[in-house]
Amino acid sequence: MFREQIKVIDCTIRDGGLINNHLFTDEFVRAVYKALSEAKIDYMEMGYRSSRKFAPEKDYGPWKYCDDDKILKIIDGIESDVKLSIMVDAHRVEDQEFKPVDQSPVDMIRVATYVKDVDRAIALVDKVHDLGYETTVNIMAVSTENEFDLIEALDQLAKTPAPVIYVVDSFGYYYCEQIEYMVKLFKKHLPGKEIGIHCHNNQQLAFSNTIEGIIHNANYLDASLYGIGRGAGNCPLELLVGFLKNPKFNLKPILKAIEDYMIPMLKDIEWGYMIPYMITGMFNQHPRSAIALRETDRKDKYAEFYEELYDVMP
Amino acid sequence: MFREQIKVIDCTIRDGGLINNHLFTDEFVRAVYKALSEAKIDYMEMGYRSSRKFAPEKDYGPWKYCDDDKILKIIDGIESDVKLSIMVDAHRVEDQEFKPVDQSPVDMIRVATYVKDVDRAIALVDKVHDLGYETTVNIMAVSTENEFDLIEALDQLAKTPAPVIYVVDSFGYYYCEQIEYMVKLFKKHLPGKEIGIHCHNNQQLAFSNTIEGIIHNANYLDASLYGIGRGAGNCPLELLVGFLKNPKFNLKPILKAIEDYMIPMLKDIEWGYMIPYMITGMFNQHPRSAIALRETDRKDKYAEFYEELYDVMP
Repeated sequence: MFREQIKVIDCTIRDGGLINNHLFTDEFVRAVYKALSEAKIDYMEMGYRSSRKFAPEKDYGPWKYCDDDKILKIIDGIESDVKLSIMVDAHRVEDQEFKPVDQSPVDMIRVATYVKDVDRAIALVDKVHDLGYETTVNIMAVSTENEFDLIEALDQLAKTPAPVIYVVDSFGYYYCEQIEYMVKLFKKHLPGKEIGIHCHNNQQLAFSNTIEGIIHNANYLDASLYGIGRGAGNCPLELLVGFLKNPKFNLKPILKAIEDYMIPMLKDIEWGYMIPYMITGMFNQHPRSAIALRETDRKDKYAEFYEELYDVMP
Repeated sequence: MFREQIKVIDCTIRDGGLINNHLFTDEFVRAVYKALSEAKIDYMEMGYRSSRKFAPEKDYGPWKYCDDDKILKIIDGIESDVKLSIMVDAHRVEDQEFKPVDQSPVDMIRVATYVKDVDRAIALVDKVHDLGYETTVNIMAVSTENEFDLIEALDQLAKTPAPVIYVVDSFGYYYCEQIEYMVKLFKKHLPGKEIGIHCHNNQQLAFSNTIEGIIHNANYLDASLYGIGRGAGNCPLELLVGFLKNPKFNLKPILKAIEDYMIPMLKDIEWGYMIPYMITGMFNQHPRSAIALRETDRKDKYAEFYEELYDVMP
């Protein structure tokens, strides 16, 4: 399972922030940074750099913006080789500032995009690439795209400076054969680029689909502590590190962070495998209807929810 | 995903019974039988037929013995095409009685065995096959067997009347490539027989490994409601039925049973993905040390547990 090119990106703060409006405490973010540093994880994604115009400050915590100053405060005094990443939504780019990379604690900017916004994504990649950042383009919800449009987008991305393009199974719909198909399609249309994989756990397949990606030569792998992330969450970092068997990684600080922070946090916010997310996943739907259900007193009325969703399927 | 030969075996009562000494209430067992009948699941495993000599009655509930009279009481008055299965441990056969199949509500007897006990398993298969029962042999903990001994056992089983031989990943150690290897090995040494697969969820791979089994032509698939089973539990039945897309199955009664019984039950007994089971799984160990840990006030001391287990590894 050892392959030197593999890079692991922890999305605990970024994808986890989607559950709590990016309101994690400084203490927690610092503890995660420390744990990932000890574990020798390659990248930590701190959150989004969102426009305060689209995302007003009264509604969100600091990890919605990931200001350089804020990040510097978090990492201050911690010895680390972990590179830092932030995400930007291609369809919500306005007013965000990016300093040249040598004046910023950020190393990598990941551009999340739907196929329809790929031109915006490319414009942003060009801009931040010129500022010296590492870049990736993460194509969200690929399971809902038609292949003609997707291939057109991939062929455009092939000509950009972004060295890594991600398959993102946003809805947790895929199983292994679909992942194999999609990773091979990306490889074919993106010669010379690395493929990344970001999976959701709606059907308890996030880890196995990440393995499937590895088998077919995806080298950028997203995961999070105890799988934290919106809805059913992501590929659990502890499972991925346990599997990779790369001697550079160290599992113990990851387990300690889960024990100290993630298990207690489950009392306040919920994520992980639950039947409503399984249902949206198997129907290849955005989890928003399941998230809404979980906030009502009908949150465990699975049979009714299944029937409702089945009835509105296209 | 449709394949007519596929049979789904629900192990809710049998494997779930390992958590609570087989003390499920009659109401619950009846509700599960009703739900599986409406869902058109092929088989329901009621529990073990254990010897009262090895398993004294003061220590266990009725599903440790699965007496015919007890089963008849449960299924009385419920319309159903579900076949009934019971399990017998090959290394603990003594005094158990088996009536001829036409005098019993049981349709199938599954013999669980380690490789070392395969001769005992074969003797039992011969006996109950002559009484008219369907039979399977389930080889437990295959991930710990050396291949020479395993192949010898398979070659012996090839000559028995048991039409189905199971790969059982008792410790939740395998990932997809190991499942593929093992299912192909079984197929090669068991010409003409069906292969079954029973996975544990220590590394969140029970469902994906079951899919891997399907891809490589395993046709007997074990699962349980909300994955209930010892430790990290089994492949969740709701995910498997959602995946199979066989129009004969009906997901809604399964979701209703989870909502009405499994979620409330989690207040009293625990199963599912937890870090201690992940650790025993990745180390290819029996979950007993993790089960013991979970009964102490150190139950969430993951980092210490990891280090302890690492130190005693062979």
